[in-house]
Amino acid sequence: MSAVQTLLTVEPLSAEAFAPFGDVLQVSDQAEHFTINAGNTERYHDLARLDPGPGGKVIASIFRGSPRTLPFSVAVMERHLLGSQAFMPLFGGGASRGYLVVVALPGKAPGAADLRCFLASASQGVNYAAGVWHHPLLALDTVSDFLVLDRSGPDDNCEEVALDPGALITL
Amino acid sequence: MSAVQTLLTVEPLSAEAFAPFGDVLQVSDQAEHFTINAGNTERYHDLARLDPGPGGKVIASIFRGSPRTLPFSVAVMERHLLGSQAFMPLFGGGASRGYLVVVALPGKAPGAADLRCFLASASQGVNYAAGVWHHPLLALDTVSDFLVLDRSGPDDNCEEVALDPGALITL
Repeated sequence: MSAVQTLLTVEPLSAEAFAPFGDVLQVSDQAEHFTINAGNTERYHDLARLDPGPGGKVIASIFRGSPRTLPFSVAVMERHLLGSQAFMPLFGGGASRGYLVVVALPGKAPGAADLRCFLASASQGVNYAAGVWHHPLLALDTVSDFLVLDRSGPDDNCEEVALDPGALITL
Repeated sequence: MSAVQTLLTVEPLSAEAFAPFGDVLQVSDQAEHFTINAGNTERYHDLARLDPGPGGKVIASIFRGSPRTLPFSVAVMERHLLGSQAFMPLFGGGASRGYLVVVALPGKAPGAADLRCFLASASQGVNYAAGVWHHPLLALDTVSDFLVLDRSGPDDNCEEVALDPGALITL
């Protein structure tokens, strides 16, 4: 008999709520911003603590994620101890529901009760601080591309743990 | 009497054509790619030579650009001698025509005859190598957001020159 799965509360993503886990990359008056290019462009400046870790450098990749089916069971979590990892959606606003973000605080391997789940909009990126537990990419509805900023450098930087029982997400 | 402006040829953006100026960030079988996240996600790996320059670090910002009116007259160009600068569109495919990219090779200040103009699609980013002359952001049709990866570090990193006569872009 398998244990009953916790149903996660899905919270809207905000910089304040996400602060214990890292940064939200978004256009916001809370960010430092200024006008450049002779008035054409507004620069929202330096939105994330990109951390390439010891001996590492920041690299840019594109992740193409297949959509998850809801309800979705969170059965694994991972962390990168040596550097941050940022995801910026490339699919624009439109009718998109965005994507899901599941995190837990750094430290010992999380259980279902330790998880927080956020619904990020298509105009919000997230940057996981080094050591923050997170679920791999959770695209919704359609194949979705993200620009990913993470670490290239010496030593293995990915650790994965299983959750049993897991936790359930629905929308 | 002002001089006649050169009409620029607008070329489709490709990694090959853009190679003298930097990198194109895009999903492509020409890029190194591999499957992660238990089969859910394809990672197109390390797509740009991000160069934070001496004593610098890579930072992530969002540029919100107002659309340009066509025909557009290229009257200034700029370069960053100390680091690269990448632009990744965040507005997704849809009906977008993408955005325009005007570049010239490193070296002495360019004249109109030295310019190349590319039409980038909404799924193509560009990374200007350090020293490559480029026009400030040229969004089309609508207010457009880009994730920008450039340099934070000591010393001024932006130089601008005027073109007279300029060059004309139309689509």
